[in-house]
Amino acid sequence: MSAIFNIFPVGVIRKKDDSVFIVIYRKYRSALMGLGQFSHIQVLYWFHKNDTPEGRSMLQVHPCNLKVNPLTGVFATHSPLRPNLIGLSLCRILSIHGSVIRIDDIDAFSGSPVIDLKCYFPLSGSENGVRVPSWERRKK
Amino acid sequence: MSAIFNIFPVGVIRKKDDSVFIVIYRKYRSALMGLGQFSHIQVLYWFHKNDTPEGRSMLQVHPCNLKVNPLTGVFATHSPLRPNLIGLSLCRILSIHGSVIRIDDIDAFSGSPVIDLKCYFPLSGSENGVRVPSWERRKK
Repeated sequence: MSAIFNIFPVGVIRKKDDSVFIVIYRKYRSALMGLGQFSHIQVLYWFHKNDTPEGRSMLQVHPCNLKVNPLTGVFATHSPLRPNLIGLSLCRILSIHGSVIRIDDIDAFSGSPVIDLKCYFPLSGSENGVRVPSWERRKK
Repeated sequence: MSAIFNIFPVGVIRKKDDSVFIVIYRKYRSALMGLGQFSHIQVLYWFHKNDTPEGRSMLQVHPCNLKVNPLTGVFATHSPLRPNLIGLSLCRILSIHGSVIRIDDIDAFSGSPVIDLKCYFPLSGSENGVRVPSWERRKK
């Protein structure tokens, strides 16, 4: 329980005009081999602007920062305030050139550190009967 | 690029007989409020058995450890060998009692540190036209 694990950025999000890129650092470029065969990726990034004791100690939020949404535990949300500041987004790959992946969009800042990428598989039977709370329909 | 981020375990995977549990540490219990309204969660855990310089330096693998599958960059797989040893699984919630979540199953060891939970929303339009390589059909 007392262990601490280290995360090293493997790249960075860059936004320019209407384009959004994942720039993977040269050291990790070979880890991209074969990614072009997928249409989508899951992008894990770090909410670096919230990396403070206060940001990491927030355990309950109003989802989507809307007071009309009930106070909810951060593990039942995608809040950028949470004990470990990991963001997770499913993104469509538009192109890959070298170690630069152009994606459709991501709800992260330009400059957000990327910590992992995972290929995306369509979901299996475990997705049947997905149920979500009513606040999920109230987004900004 | 030289920053290092710290990850603190928030719980642990426990497997007993045919049952699989996520045990969230007491300190983080209030972060679970409202999770019962979801049928599924995304579980982020740490591949702690591979937390060695060698395990983290592996950038290409044969997916599913099958030689017939082409050598592939780890970012195009869900390999447990990768620069940051984050595992990600979509799980069905069977029950929640206090800070113990019973789930259907997870491809992690009993004892694996849990580092984050995120609620699961059905996918939106960005999922249309999902494409994957042929090796995705060859699993153990």
